[in-house]
Amino acid sequence: MLAHVHHGPFATLVGYELTAWHTDEATVALSVTDRHINRSGVVHGGVIATLIDTACGFAGCYRPPPQEGRRAMTLALTTQFIAPAVAGMRITAHARRTGGGRQIFFASCEVRDQDGRLIASGEGTFRYRREA
Amino acid sequence: MLAHVHHGPFATLVGYELTAWHTDEATVALSVTDRHINRSGVVHGGVIATLIDTACGFAGCYRPPPQEGRRAMTLALTTQFIAPAVAGMRITAHARRTGGGRQIFFASCEVRDQDGRLIASGEGTFRYRREA
Amino acid sequence: MLAHVHHGPFATLVGYELTAWHTDEATVALSVTDRHINRSGVVHGGVIATLIDTACGFAGCYRPPPQEGRRAMTLALTTQFIAPAVAGMRITAHARRTGGGRQIFFASCEVRDQDGRLIASGEGTFRYRREA
Amino acid sequence: MLAHVHHGPFATLVGYELTAWHTDEATVALSVTDRHINRSGVVHGGVIATLIDTACGFAGCYRPPPQEGRRAMTLALTTQFIAPAVAGMRITAHARRTGGGRQIFFASCEVRDQDGRLIASGEGTFRYRREA
Repeated sequence: MLAHVHHGPFATLVGYELTAWHTDEATVALSVTDRHINRSGVVHGGVIATLIDTACGFAGCYRPPPQEGRRAMTLALTTQFIAPAVAGMRITAHARRTGGGRQIFFASCEVRDQDGRLIASGEGTFRYRREA
Repeated sequence: MLAHVHHGPFATLVGYELTAWHTDEATVALSVTDRHINRSGVVHGGVIATLIDTACGFAGCYRPPPQEGRRAMTLALTTQFIAPAVAGMRITAHARRTGGGRQIFFASCEVRDQDGRLIASGEGTFRYRREA
Repeated sequence: MLAHVHHGPFATLVGYELTAWHTDEATVALSVTDRHINRSGVVHGGVIATLIDTACGFAGCYRPPPQEGRRAMTLALTTQFIAPAVAGMRITAHARRTGGGRQIFFASCEVRDQDGRLIASGEGTFRYRREA
Repeated sequence: MLAHVHHGPFATLVGYELTAWHTDEATVALSVTDRHINRSGVVHGGVIATLIDTACGFAGCYRPPPQEGRRAMTLALTTQFIAPAVAGMRITAHARRTGGGRQIFFASCEVRDQDGRLIASGEGTFRYRREA
């Protein structure tokens, strides 16, 4: 976990962490446990969407320290569920900012397990928040 | 909460509940608390996506008791974030199955707050699980 | 066709027309012919996406005459293909603006055949163009 | 254009062509002309969605000659519009099959102009057609 990054309460609840953050890219990781499972015994789709939303959002918000990152709100998010994730896996969402400008940005993300197998992919459209 | 419905562990973690379930429709509700908040102070997009995924999935899986519901896996999920949700709200995701057949189904969902204001919308494509 | 509405060249090429346009809603219709068909013998998914993009875009851009409509650019578009369309059908995309503000708007759309059967659904996120 | 590939009528109407096709990937190209333009003077979003749908579909359907490609129908399609395309551009949609199995496949696509600038990205979920 990157010590200088402020995580929100939902990050703590789910247990994911930002593990890499650079200009136009970000990586979020999660050690999957029983609490991430749905009634069918695999990771809930909402967990995967959470990781993609988070990684894509961070990917467009990096600024070099000591500046804090920018803030953005998601406008639209898509996810494709390519292979099920199960408890015991370590899954990683890696996102890249693919374009945009001063107000809007776009990002694409892949979620992989510890062996590099593709679990999910997705894309997000974001709007930067105005700064105080 | 519908007493006869088995919820998974992630439902318990997030705290949502299935409040209505009929042929081709389902409603999932969440009392938003501080633990659903992201680093920007509003409900994490992943919470909203979780509700949409869950409501859409249930919408295609109803069978009259004493049968249990069918099971399905999400293939693709989309979300539009129309207005921010904040702690203290009671938000409700209502989904309808819009089509499909024996193997695939489609559903659309709206998420509203306690005053009926639209928070988000989304759609999901699902595949039924084979039954033992 | 609404006589006072300026259509672009791609509308002419594909052959669709705006058949209703009011505050926060729009309807686009297409008489499906052989030229809309893909290599598998059904209407190309791109035709359906075109109708959804167009209807959603118009839905957020109405202004009462003699004003012209606003202009917008699509940021993100999603489509679910619920049932195939074939030549001879008259299909209609009806979109509603579901939210947004001064810069961004959201719309949802359903595409139906002449008998009201659901062919596709989709959603779009749009940004208004600045006016000269 | 790949001479041995059967294109449908909508491909002819729009004017795109399949320029590369291999196991798990496909490229579709279009020389943008005035007929692809919308009422705002840029390429209609439906044109971009058409290219993404086509390239993603082909990406999952390659079989080495003399076999014909498999056939698939789109279940869900998403597009992000990253930069506008205009008449005179040569745009190329390159798609990769990212996963799936015997019945379903997933693909991701990027659309670039002749200088490699990203115009759009998108993803599709597809179902193989049963063969006679």
